[in-house]
Amino acid sequence: MNNLIFRKATKNDLPDIVHMLLDDTLGAMRENHDATLPESYVNAFEKIQADPNQELTVVELDGELVATFQLSFIQYLTYQGGLRAQMEAVRTKSTYRGKGIGRSVFNYAIRRATEKGCHLIQLTTDKRRPDAIRFYESLGFVASHEGMKLTLANF
Amino acid sequence: MNNLIFRKATKNDLPDIVHMLLDDTLGAMRENHDATLPESYVNAFEKIQADPNQELTVVELDGELVATFQLSFIQYLTYQGGLRAQMEAVRTKSTYRGKGIGRSVFNYAIRRATEKGCHLIQLTTDKRRPDAIRFYESLGFVASHEGMKLTLANF
Repeated sequence: MNNLIFRKATKNDLPDIVHMLLDDTLGAMRENHDATLPESYVNAFEKIQADPNQELTVVELDGELVATFQLSFIQYLTYQGGLRAQMEAVRTKSTYRGKGIGRSVFNYAIRRATEKGCHLIQLTTDKRRPDAIRFYESLGFVASHEGMKLTLANF
Repeated sequence: MNNLIFRKATKNDLPDIVHMLLDDTLGAMRENHDATLPESYVNAFEKIQADPNQELTVVELDGELVATFQLSFIQYLTYQGGLRAQMEAVRTKSTYRGKGIGRSVFNYAIRRATEKGCHLIQLTTDKRRPDAIRFYESLGFVASHEGMKLTLANF
């Protein structure tokens, strides 16, 4: 889609972003969206916004937020001191799915990561989302790695 | 092992760290370790060191560096504004493998991530490293996700 606007999220976008995170089969199990937004989201937003290596991004279509994602730039020593981009929390508003917005999101993210000098863009995706895996493969991503997670006592 | 010392890496450790990254079947294909350390490693080190969310760590045994890893703390909105720890570039010096150092490294990393308030510790591991996958599973990690990577034109 050509008429999408990509910009960094502001605090005013936060309720819409959390709503998109919630509006998802797996996300619904773990997000909290009471009438008042829990303070933990606001605190997290402020830390993300203050970090120059984080780009919490929103996508607008005709003044409405239709997608969100977080792009993180991580500096490593490996690959001769290479910078990586990592995508997380990619969501399209449910009423706007199947319109190519996801593809535009990744075209943007790949361009942005290239501009920043990254040698790689990476993400992990739940094995219970086979459609997502096929979509990422269609963009050129290779499922070369196992994405391993260990939940800690804090949650 | 009980007599290991964990500390943040200093610039003086850099040649030893790069040597450990190189001393690895997959790593040997992508690292560069001429007599003079390429400037790209030094630049990357300085960026890592300046970032409070990055802990490039070395492990000493009797004054010798025997392992290294990088622990990154990434703030997200998901999981009600949760902080994640991510492990990368985990290496034990080849002459010290099979002595339980890897297990001590992960015990340390899990403790450190818990102290920082993380709800999750994550890593991706190459599917061509089956021994590593079994080792991570023995620590409680679950291979619930595909780790997908896309190499960019910059590399």
